[in-house]
Amino acid sequence: MFVPEGFLFSGISCGIKKEDKLDLGLIYSPEELTAWGVFTTNTVKAIPVLLGKRLIREKKIHGILANSGVANACTGEEGFKRALTILKEVAKYLKIPYKSLLPASTGVIGEQLPLEKILPNIPTLISNLSVQNYIQFAKAIMTTDTFPKIVSKKTEDGIVIFGVAKGAGMIAPNMATMLAFILTDAEVSKDYLKKSLPKMVEQSFNRITVDGDTSTNDTVYMLCSNLKKIKNWEKFESLCLEVAKELAYLIIKDGEGTSKVIKILIKGAKTKNEAKILATSVANSPLVKTAFYGGDPNWGRIFSALGKSGIKFNPQEIEIYLNGIPWVANFKSINNEAKIKEEMRKPEIELCIRLKQGKMSYEMLTTDLTEEYIRINAHYRT
Amino acid sequence: MFVPEGFLFSGISCGIKKEDKLDLGLIYSPEELTAWGVFTTNTVKAIPVLLGKRLIREKKIHGILANSGVANACTGEEGFKRALTILKEVAKYLKIPYKSLLPASTGVIGEQLPLEKILPNIPTLISNLSVQNYIQFAKAIMTTDTFPKIVSKKTEDGIVIFGVAKGAGMIAPNMATMLAFILTDAEVSKDYLKKSLPKMVEQSFNRITVDGDTSTNDTVYMLCSNLKKIKNWEKFESLCLEVAKELAYLIIKDGEGTSKVIKILIKGAKTKNEAKILATSVANSPLVKTAFYGGDPNWGRIFSALGKSGIKFNPQEIEIYLNGIPWVANFKSINNEAKIKEEMRKPEIELCIRLKQGKMSYEMLTTDLTEEYIRINAHYRT
Repeated sequence: MFVPEGFLFSGISCGIKKEDKLDLGLIYSPEELTAWGVFTTNTVKAIPVLLGKRLIREKKIHGILANSGVANACTGEEGFKRALTILKEVAKYLKIPYKSLLPASTGVIGEQLPLEKILPNIPTLISNLSVQNYIQFAKAIMTTDTFPKIVSKKTEDGIVIFGVAKGAGMIAPNMATMLAFILTDAEVSKDYLKKSLPKMVEQSFNRITVDGDTSTNDTVYMLCSNLKKIKNWEKFESLCLEVAKELAYLIIKDGEGTSKVIKILIKGAKTKNEAKILATSVANSPLVKTAFYGGDPNWGRIFSALGKSGIKFNPQEIEIYLNGIPWVANFKSINNEAKIKEEMRKPEIELCIRLKQGKMSYEMLTTDLTEEYIRINAHYRT
Repeated sequence: MFVPEGFLFSGISCGIKKEDKLDLGLIYSPEELTAWGVFTTNTVKAIPVLLGKRLIREKKIHGILANSGVANACTGEEGFKRALTILKEVAKYLKIPYKSLLPASTGVIGEQLPLEKILPNIPTLISNLSVQNYIQFAKAIMTTDTFPKIVSKKTEDGIVIFGVAKGAGMIAPNMATMLAFILTDAEVSKDYLKKSLPKMVEQSFNRITVDGDTSTNDTVYMLCSNLKKIKNWEKFESLCLEVAKELAYLIIKDGEGTSKVIKILIKGAKTKNEAKILATSVANSPLVKTAFYGGDPNWGRIFSALGKSGIKFNPQEIEIYLNGIPWVANFKSINNEAKIKEEMRKPEIELCIRLKQGKMSYEMLTTDLTEEYIRINAHYRT
């Protein structure tokens, strides 16, 4: 695993979650980092999102303090005070301004951060900081995730782009209960990040959906330690996007109770926005998702989901391909059903829908919908 | 059960569905009926919807021919021909113009109506017509429904309003795989129906959701045999709405795999449209629905679902009531959790959300989301 220069990681258990699970994480750099963030569009914003949106405008950032178990959302003035108390305590030990730490939380909404559990453990959190402890950090931000999510790549110039994320449910375009942090040792300006990070998010994290539920806590931070000069910007940008896309893929792969990753590809739409609306409508349809779970080649549900979006098209002109195999054309199955069923059983599926209305396309990732999703979410908190 | 004068019913099995289930139904009146219809907004419209939209403009209507098992959607020219062939055959036996019969279908999309099974059974369908056979008719339009849905009421003037419906999944505002037929012996004009039926549908069938999936076949027809003069219009209209609302309730009650009916009530919104968007967002949130299934008083999911709608409000001002009991105010549970859990276990739940942003309100019905919904829909067709 490539780790970018200038970053230290820590992850500990302080009892916010049950059963000694890791629940408090820190990414710290002695360097002054260039940083930017993209946040949830939910009207109900968690305290760390409200705080993070403010702090991200500071010139000098030194890291991210994240916790799982409690989202610190819908916690009011008291939630705000507690978040600040914790940031200040960590900053005191690190001898940095508290405003140079970016907060992130994920977990149950409406509960306060337990100061009595967190504050006494901060010395341990700090003494555990090391270059290697990124897995502990990744575990400390997990909720219903079943595995830590880390992706790392290196350019030919030796620049490392490292991403860590969490998310498995409440996942929808415009982000989700999703935290993703992208770290690099490249030298970039804040202005560059302000422009490039939203674009990167639009092409990665905003194109995944598990359940159409968008969270109060979604946050993507990008931090740069500025230790290495970028020679090939094109390569750097494409690797950053790859890291973001692979993290997004891992979130979908770990979608609550899911058994399949389904790429929805809309082609031949009139406009990009129409392609996006159609892709979203199919990706979020419970009837499409359960059909994929059951391996039932019931293509009528795909037509119905396209149509309920309200976008106008000629249904009879639609062609559907499954993993590249022609499936439906002119309202008819054009391949034998056994073959399509076999493809539907695979864990990775590409569903390509051609509309013949224009030239625009859009792709997004979704999952199937299973009994296990219900079990996880009916009993998550209790 | 009150049956309106002038109507005969029939329901038979002709093998479209498996296991000798009833699958072909006829409502017939020797009288010339006044009729109107409201149809799905899905871009992909089934043949009976396309045909029904045309035929409903005819002056003289004699009844409805409905089938289950095959939706006759995405069936192209051939589907159109088959629907006409069947209508003409029934009309021939009844000695009426085929254009006076309104078609309705529900079932699997993309399959053709099996003429070889339907046509030989039409004499039986017609010979079974009787005043009493409304239950057979109601059963003949069922798909995943677990019970036939009939509601009937009588005004003081002796006017009967009789409703029959089907629907259990693919249910969403702007209707669903939902057929509902409202029959009355009152005398009304077509112009009156054109105005009043859409209003009635807006306040009943368009306010229910099981899964947010809108079907290709949704149809509401209202037929009037004109045998009785209306004296009290206000009473007549309110009884019609009651019949429609009770049918809508029965559809939700029978929602696929559901264990609860949940009335979502938004109060204090700025505009009616905002209230509607907020209600819909909560009613369709898988995380809210699974929390109700699990009986988990995780109110954060309700806040998150309200916020993801994009409507602006102050979350801290929100008050939530469950079955009239204060639950959340100022971001805090204000009643003991055991009490709320007890209420959540009930089969009928009213979730009232007060925003304090204005004076507009909106209500709709939804269900919880269970493993059984997944089982039904993963394996429905096969």
